[in-house]
Amino acid sequence: MDSISSDSSFRYLLEVAYDGTDFCGWQVQPNGTSVQQVLEFNLSRIYADMRIDTESSGRTDAGVHALAQAVTFTPPLRPLIDQDKLFRSLNRMLPRTIRIVSIRKVPRDFHARFSALAKTYTYVINTGPSTPFVERWSWNLRSFTKIREVRAAMKMLEGVHDFSAFTVDRKEIGDAVRTLFSAKLKRFGPIICLTFTGDGFLYKMIRSIVGTIAFVGEGRIPPEETGRILESRDRSEAYDTAPAQGLFLMKVYYRKGEWRRFRLERPPFHC
Amino acid sequence: MDSISSDSSFRYLLEVAYDGTDFCGWQVQPNGTSVQQVLEFNLSRIYADMRIDTESSGRTDAGVHALAQAVTFTPPLRPLIDQDKLFRSLNRMLPRTIRIVSIRKVPRDFHARFSALAKTYTYVINTGPSTPFVERWSWNLRSFTKIREVRAAMKMLEGVHDFSAFTVDRKEIGDAVRTLFSAKLKRFGPIICLTFTGDGFLYKMIRSIVGTIAFVGEGRIPPEETGRILESRDRSEAYDTAPAQGLFLMKVYYRKGEWRRFRLERPPFHC
Repeated sequence: MDSISSDSSFRYLLEVAYDGTDFCGWQVQPNGTSVQQVLEFNLSRIYADMRIDTESSGRTDAGVHALAQAVTFTPPLRPLIDQDKLFRSLNRMLPRTIRIVSIRKVPRDFHARFSALAKTYTYVINTGPSTPFVERWSWNLRSFTKIREVRAAMKMLEGVHDFSAFTVDRKEIGDAVRTLFSAKLKRFGPIICLTFTGDGFLYKMIRSIVGTIAFVGEGRIPPEETGRILESRDRSEAYDTAPAQGLFLMKVYYRKGEWRRFRLERPPFHC
Repeated sequence: MDSISSDSSFRYLLEVAYDGTDFCGWQVQPNGTSVQQVLEFNLSRIYADMRIDTESSGRTDAGVHALAQAVTFTPPLRPLIDQDKLFRSLNRMLPRTIRIVSIRKVPRDFHARFSALAKTYTYVINTGPSTPFVERWSWNLRSFTKIREVRAAMKMLEGVHDFSAFTVDRKEIGDAVRTLFSAKLKRFGPIICLTFTGDGFLYKMIRSIVGTIAFVGEGRIPPEETGRILESRDRSEAYDTAPAQGLFLMKVYYRKGEWRRFRLERPPFHC
């Protein structure tokens, strides 16, 4: 496998959906199969066994899903693969748990992570009985009933804050100011979707927030406790992180203000 | 493994959800693993290795899913297993692709199939891009856009009819009169649910109907063609059967008129 330099006049931006259940996350890891590894392996097969390096908008952890992870790469100059053919070939070769949703050409200086302006994540909670159709993709919390209180708690998180209390990476503490444009709850029968749109997220930030929000939803702590934990900027104040299988990376935005138009009309397993 | 006669004063009625993808259907088969086999094996483990025979409301074919398949069995007199414990133990022992949704006691003469008064099936069509979250459970038809025409076609099927044109079992021809209480289309973004409630269904009847309806949805035949095929009572007039993975057994009804209250509020993978 040869790595070749390339001065292609464009790069490709892929939107990739994946069921994270059986992967060790986005990033290549010594143990386990990662989404990146499977994607690069198949890109390499398409491009005459040349090595293809991809970047994503960010790592997703083991078990976390994506509806539209953004991935960029520079195609080699040869073989020249038509865009439609690339789309079809990749989807034919990839396992059913990884799908290319869209593909487009972007300028040479475009980078999935560095060019990203904002992201949306949705965390799915199932308050109904567990069925094979939702349990891979949700956290089953039968007693998550305090909807009004959860909405109040989420409201407290919106805006520009130091989110140190909601990360598990000590290195990020001190550089933990992020803008959460919106934090909304939407209900679809027994399914509750908690949707967060922001300019950036700390390591395990959503799952840390949801771990605390779950206590509010179950009526074990009042909504104000969320604001108090946020202001403490102290991770030891927050509750356990929520399990990975409920979390979806929904969308990455590259155009300014694009996220204002994003509305979750239904849980992610409909899209 | 001993089979023992039992004169228990009651039977159990289970509602069972299953992801049909990896099963050869409900019924025990010489090749492949069936839902019934896995369920009976685990019931036997709970009841001190005694053989437990179950009956369902009807077979589902390989790849067909269920949200609430009805299953009855007579518990042995000993060991006496508490109903809540039975529910919890079964769900702990069964694979994640089979879940017990509810359990209740019914009279001795109650039988999942013979006592059933009606059933609801839903067939799921995805008109959007394929993602790992829907493709196991839907038929991907991007050009299924003729919603008004499909509604008109489904209307023609409602009522008391000889459905010979929509079965693939020759033995059923001549005894093919069934009552379809309702046939409705409901849309959830890119997902289209075709829901059928009737007093009984012929072998592969829904999938045969959907195979024809798909042609209407894609604008390849006019809605009236559905009525003409129905009236022909000739299987060779209908189109190919739709693939199994889009079909869900949603509910079995045992109380008269119970089905009138049934409304599909969302696609089955939400329930």
